[in-house]
Amino acid sequence: MFESAEIGHKISKSDYRKAVPALRSALLEAQIELYEARKIPVVVLISGQDGAGKGETINILYEWMDPRFISTLAFAQPTEEESDRPVMWRYWQSLPPKGRLGIFAGSWYSDPIRQSIEGEITPEELDARADQINRFEAMLVNEGALVLKFWFHLTRDAQKSRLKALANDPRTAWRVTQWNWDRLKTYNKLQETAGHFLRMTNTPWAPWVVVDGSNDAYRSLTVGQVLLNSLKAKLAEKAIPVSLVAPMVRVDMDGRNVLSTLNLEKKAASADYANELAHWQGRLSELVRDPRFQGRSLVCAFEGADAAGKGGAIRRICAAMDARQYRVVPVAAPTDEERAQPHLWRFWRHLPRRGHVTVFDRTWYGRVLVERVEGFCSENDWLRAYTEINDFEHELTDAGSIVVKFWLQISQEEQLRRFQEREKIAFKRFKITDEDWRNREKWDAYQQAVCDMVERTSTGRAPWTLVEANDKKYARVKILRTLCERLEEEFKGRASSGKVKDVGKKSEKSAKGKKS
Amino acid sequence: MFESAEIGHKISKSDYRKAVPALRSALLEAQIELYEARKIPVVVLISGQDGAGKGETINILYEWMDPRFISTLAFAQPTEEESDRPVMWRYWQSLPPKGRLGIFAGSWYSDPIRQSIEGEITPEELDARADQINRFEAMLVNEGALVLKFWFHLTRDAQKSRLKALANDPRTAWRVTQWNWDRLKTYNKLQETAGHFLRMTNTPWAPWVVVDGSNDAYRSLTVGQVLLNSLKAKLAEKAIPVSLVAPMVRVDMDGRNVLSTLNLEKKAASADYANELAHWQGRLSELVRDPRFQGRSLVCAFEGADAAGKGGAIRRICAAMDARQYRVVPVAAPTDEERAQPHLWRFWRHLPRRGHVTVFDRTWYGRVLVERVEGFCSENDWLRAYTEINDFEHELTDAGSIVVKFWLQISQEEQLRRFQEREKIAFKRFKITDEDWRNREKWDAYQQAVCDMVERTSTGRAPWTLVEANDKKYARVKILRTLCERLEEEFKGRASSGKVKDVGKKSEKSAKGKKS
Repeated sequence: MFESAEIGHKISKSDYRKAVPALRSALLEAQIELYEARKIPVVVLISGQDGAGKGETINILYEWMDPRFISTLAFAQPTEEESDRPVMWRYWQSLPPKGRLGIFAGSWYSDPIRQSIEGEITPEELDARADQINRFEAMLVNEGALVLKFWFHLTRDAQKSRLKALANDPRTAWRVTQWNWDRLKTYNKLQETAGHFLRMTNTPWAPWVVVDGSNDAYRSLTVGQVLLNSLKAKLAEKAIPVSLVAPMVRVDMDGRNVLSTLNLEKKAASADYANELAHWQGRLSELVRDPRFQGRSLVCAFEGADAAGKGGAIRRICAAMDARQYRVVPVAAPTDEERAQPHLWRFWRHLPRRGHVTVFDRTWYGRVLVERVEGFCSENDWLRAYTEINDFEHELTDAGSIVVKFWLQISQEEQLRRFQEREKIAFKRFKITDEDWRNREKWDAYQQAVCDMVERTSTGRAPWTLVEANDKKYARVKILRTLCERLEEEFKGRASSGKVKDVGKKSEKSAKGKKS
Repeated sequence: MFESAEIGHKISKSDYRKAVPALRSALLEAQIELYEARKIPVVVLISGQDGAGKGETINILYEWMDPRFISTLAFAQPTEEESDRPVMWRYWQSLPPKGRLGIFAGSWYSDPIRQSIEGEITPEELDARADQINRFEAMLVNEGALVLKFWFHLTRDAQKSRLKALANDPRTAWRVTQWNWDRLKTYNKLQETAGHFLRMTNTPWAPWVVVDGSNDAYRSLTVGQVLLNSLKAKLAEKAIPVSLVAPMVRVDMDGRNVLSTLNLEKKAASADYANELAHWQGRLSELVRDPRFQGRSLVCAFEGADAAGKGGAIRRICAAMDARQYRVVPVAAPTDEERAQPHLWRFWRHLPRRGHVTVFDRTWYGRVLVERVEGFCSENDWLRAYTEINDFEHELTDAGSIVVKFWLQISQEEQLRRFQEREKIAFKRFKITDEDWRNREKWDAYQQAVCDMVERTSTGRAPWTLVEANDKKYARVKILRTLCERLEEEFKGRASSGKVKDVGKKSEKSAKGKKS
């Protein structure tokens, strides 16, 4: 990968001065077109060896382009805020919106390479990180982004002379530390590790551009020209490139599915309800104050048909917790700012810190439910979303989050009854809109989408719990109980079994047992 | 993933008998259309728990469809032939050609799951296998295949009763061994491992279809119907789905590249040539008979412009080896049989066993050289090929192969001289055709393609060696020396540095040293 960067590229100062004006104005023009179209976010990663000109290049890009539409993001050791969340969280926070350029000085590549060199992760773990990065970048490109990855290369000798030159110049001496000199000693190790990691992440959708870093003029012109050509190519694209998807093939041989086989007649015994509710709320309150929860976090996802009782259930959960510890995020149509980002961005931004709880009232599953059924996104978009969502939840659980997902199922008749009731009661009337009645007409399509969702996204680490919700009391108790039992299980470190947890029977008994 | 398969699906025998005739004739019809179009290979994986009906289902598919166009491939422990080659070799050998169905009973999923359960591989290694499989299947789909992956699921109780039923029936009792009963004991472990592995390989391009295996009628009809619907959807596709690729952006700021900076004037000292050649041939002869080579294999790849001297160099290599140990594979236009397979298939089939050598005269790089330049494949095809090729060579080196790749570079003038010479000499005239003259007109496009190829596919494990070949003698000695030194390095287990090995200088000295 480094061969072209080692043949000794060089551009003279006069050639450089001659080339810059045209390049600058072309870059500015492309940048304006990019901004006005507001369709493409541009992610530029500047990485490579110490002293290979990363900082200089970023400064030149600012000089050449309109800095109002560029943001530069430098990542060092994660802050406390950051290390309390999944590894990729801080990068998600920093993604440029559509129409803008985000320049990453240090990126999702820095940590894995450093950790591998320092022996903190095994070669297999390094490869797993490469795979995670590849999927992340594929998602970005699928969401319309241009991802440009530069690696500035220096031979060992060139690196040494550049470090010396920097150290000898009083204006730059401060940039050279003992750390840099030490790193020079491990040049071969870095080359080997970076070479391997670059090869593993050199995907068709986001290939690396390796640039000789030894000559300033050559490096700057090359980066500028690659950026310009890539911007132009991307702006000229007729459509966002589609990813490889197999069409959804669903057969229904016996008319039975995970929703149709739920027994919606399940009811809480009215006499017990208050006791049971209090019991599980008390238990939940203990669990989220348990010292073992301090290193974890809880992400609750609520989905269900309109009027299925999500709000009521969420209030029962929150009643058991301190308001400083949890946050409820109601998910409606995305804001302008959210629409300018990949579809999962608006969920990443609300992820809880360690020791905290976020309850999502509707979730990232919108893409495979409402957006699929209503045609708000393309088939390609929702077909690839299952994997993206699984990856997202995988990253959450990897970082210690406990992900609990509820689907609240009611019958069509029960929904009708609740709609009519809402229309009668003044203070509930705001809850029912024309849209609710329209959605109702697509009942079957929604049920189908829910079955596909459960099949593809109920995983060992983040299983779905299907809740029989015709009886609100029964549903609330089951939800609280599931939450508590899940937290207990996670504290024990028990492996999960990879299936939807219908913990109903067993737990009803144990709950009764506790009361007697 | 297993929830729908656990709700207890059932179809009565009479319903089954009613449904089969229509399904059968529709399947046959689709199969004929598939065969006549000869565009799509169909890969069907039948996997899942013991006793879940894998064998029965395969038999039924044979009964329902035309067995002449189906092949079934059962994989048990690898044979000696197989274990002497990369893990995926035996699956490549078994891929169905376009227009046909290949049913895999046991597949690339069986070993990783078993090895993980038995603790032979770590969770990270398991995930790395998932990633490898995902890229393999993406390649298949990119090459036009329909990949259908069935997983037959049973609850623990259902598995137990099915094993009992099989054991009690004298016609099937032989199929139940102690191994099956032992496996039942580790049901949870299998569920957990398989659940995780299925989730990691549940890609948008090749998603899993999980089927309840407990009821024969339900399982058979479901598999038949999914196969039918998928075939129909695939046959109706207007074009092969394209994968996500970034366009090739190449900038050339100073006119220098890895080819233009080669010193083609390098010459072997005529007086030394015979000695040097003999020296390195002798050394090579020793190295391939070295006991340390018995666990390895050698794959030599030769590329270069027409008349660059590949044939002559290859003959000098072969002269050093026993004809039973090596094989030269000249690569021309693909045969019909090869055209019905993914583009790498024709190279997989010629891979050497342990202790053996294959020399490819032109290689898998044809896709990013001649096919790219001449437009024999789509841009999407060659853009994704770099990664596919890197994956291919990665699998080779993982399996202990030593991959040595030579690009023979001559100047345009030298090529012209050789062409004219060939036309003059009767016994060389067959070597020069109109096509050679046409290719010559595309010199620049080919040079460009070679630079891109080196940049994207020269890896630490499989670096390119660029050979200055205007002087044939110099080229031959350099090639032989590189081969020997590479073998020595590999025997020492020295890590490779991730860059093109131009071992010229250092080695010239050492070669001389040896002679003095």
